[in-house]
Amino acid sequence: MLVNGKPQRTIWLNPRNPACVEIIDQRLLPHRFVIKQLHNLDEVIIAIRDMYVRGAPLIGATAAWGMYLAVLAQDDLEILSRKAECLKAARPTAVNLAWAVDRVMKRLRSGGTDLLALARSEAEAICDEDVEICRKIGESGLSLIAETAERKQGEPVNILTHCNAGWLATVDWGTATSPIYQAQQRGIELHIWVDETRPRNQGANLTAWELGEQGIAHSVIVDNAGGHLMQKGLVDLVIVGTDRTARNGDVANKIGTYLKALAAHDTGVPFYVALPSPTIDWSLDSGCQQIPIEERDGREVTHISGYLSDESIAEVRITPASSRAVNPAFDVTPARLISGLITEHGICAASEEGLLGLFPEQVNND
Amino acid sequence: MLVNGKPQRTIWLNPRNPACVEIIDQRLLPHRFVIKQLHNLDEVIIAIRDMYVRGAPLIGATAAWGMYLAVLAQDDLEILSRKAECLKAARPTAVNLAWAVDRVMKRLRSGGTDLLALARSEAEAICDEDVEICRKIGESGLSLIAETAERKQGEPVNILTHCNAGWLATVDWGTATSPIYQAQQRGIELHIWVDETRPRNQGANLTAWELGEQGIAHSVIVDNAGGHLMQKGLVDLVIVGTDRTARNGDVANKIGTYLKALAAHDTGVPFYVALPSPTIDWSLDSGCQQIPIEERDGREVTHISGYLSDESIAEVRITPASSRAVNPAFDVTPARLISGLITEHGICAASEEGLLGLFPEQVNND
Repeated sequence: MLVNGKPQRTIWLNPRNPACVEIIDQRLLPHRFVIKQLHNLDEVIIAIRDMYVRGAPLIGATAAWGMYLAVLAQDDLEILSRKAECLKAARPTAVNLAWAVDRVMKRLRSGGTDLLALARSEAEAICDEDVEICRKIGESGLSLIAETAERKQGEPVNILTHCNAGWLATVDWGTATSPIYQAQQRGIELHIWVDETRPRNQGANLTAWELGEQGIAHSVIVDNAGGHLMQKGLVDLVIVGTDRTARNGDVANKIGTYLKALAAHDTGVPFYVALPSPTIDWSLDSGCQQIPIEERDGREVTHISGYLSDESIAEVRITPASSRAVNPAFDVTPARLISGLITEHGICAASEEGLLGLFPEQVNND
Repeated sequence: MLVNGKPQRTIWLNPRNPACVEIIDQRLLPHRFVIKQLHNLDEVIIAIRDMYVRGAPLIGATAAWGMYLAVLAQDDLEILSRKAECLKAARPTAVNLAWAVDRVMKRLRSGGTDLLALARSEAEAICDEDVEICRKIGESGLSLIAETAERKQGEPVNILTHCNAGWLATVDWGTATSPIYQAQQRGIELHIWVDETRPRNQGANLTAWELGEQGIAHSVIVDNAGGHLMQKGLVDLVIVGTDRTARNGDVANKIGTYLKALAAHDTGVPFYVALPSPTIDWSLDSGCQQIPIEERDGREVTHISGYLSDESIAEVRITPASSRAVNPAFDVTPARLISGLITEHGICAASEEGLLGLFPEQVNND
């Protein structure tokens, strides 16, 4: 999507140096737009663990390029296999991480001899497929927005989203934002409610920034406000992303998603989850019981960084020095609260039947 | 309650200068403990409007002392009556503000000649009654905590609270915190989950500070986290305050309360609202339909203040400069989500029948 009016992806191989993968250092957005170069697997692990990149699809794409850089360093399959395990441990919740790493390893073990070329083509394929999947998610979800727009007869469609499931979370288009960007291209009037998404403020920092760069009207709200806006009829539709989706339609997404789903359910606002099929963990029967939830450093709660009035970046502490903080990073929204899942194959009910209807090849997969 | 180990109220007449009312400048907590002197009604209006003081009971107490300072300046009842209306407009949601101002005005019109003495004794009475009401709320709510403690056999009772309905929101004891402080005095093991309460962070700034000064174990969490903690069985009880309670048991409280009530209801966690009877607006049949919700400056969302590493206070912007923010300050939690109301007369169902059972004198009041 657009940055300063020019098309941009979130990750790419440096065209002049194939030993260098480039990403946007998302920790500095919206204050600075900085490109970060990655030269080896350790740098990739740090970029994933310390959230230079985040978002399940982009974590997967970055991990795939991490395996490429690992092969560049040495091509012993046994050692690569151990490095793959290290990489998979960088973050625990997103299923795409393991999925992408396993996919590259499988390709490397497929019998070819030029492992570097295999790793590169697999990483490129993962990125290109992600772009295509996200584009198709947008096509699937567009109908929901278009129907609402028709009902509202030219009034803007108010969509609430949580965290950043935007193009910054993927390679391009985004998941939850893809229907929004495609609706914009169709000329539909839109207004997006952007949950700031504490503790890391990905909504205030990233979603607001990418919507602004794209020229889409939006308002940032605190995470507390969405329920009230729904009570007042100011939200037509909720669309969020997911880090991991269980076979039964339960979704793990950024902490606080569950609360918005409850409010949408209570007020009759449609609540949709946009997801690329690689985030479906077919091995999990129930998200609520089986998805592990990452617990992150309490410092993300006690300290907030932003811009001082002189435009320098600073971090402030908002709690008493002696108070501890607890910081679960995700929660699980039970399928019963979800109106539907928006996938690259279309929209389905948040249930095993719904998912298998769109992905019949998984029927006998356990 | 305690500050630096010494008992403290939130508002008092300077014992050496009866033309000066003193408050804690709560905007600077937890970073600085600063006493602010108020000398006239304008300063009182600013203190209420700009949230040097906040919390429905303390707003009422401060307004009563504001009328005292107004009488000190001049004692024409007509002019005082107009000033009373200005004062009542300082903040729109809390019913205590109008209640306290009207009560002082009624006393002034009661026929006495020494209006200053009347205003002072009424302001003192409002403060002393608030302390006594809050103490009794604590006695009422203590049973809920004691029963949970007994069931947990020595394990700490985990109580979640939102915003600050602590002693800083009242004259002393607090509303939601009063049962907690009384449980502490009975030796019950406690651990409090403190919602940070964006946008103004009253939980992270004030509740965490007062619990810390009182020596009560607590953890600050983002507002997004409560639902997940309830899903995981880590919350035994929710106790929040309220700014205005309708006759049917609906309560207006800090934005985000509704979301926590939904989660408590969904997970079977008892959800109680602690309230002094002056926050009951008997004239409102339904909170959801009739309570006006204050919309505050978007800057409270886009900017956060806290401590820099050199211990100076600074404000950082967390959103892109071009993104607007919308900032509703309260939401209404429907009575159906509330397990009970904790009042100075005991605990009742969140319903007209429940409230009238405790306050039978209101049966014929419309």
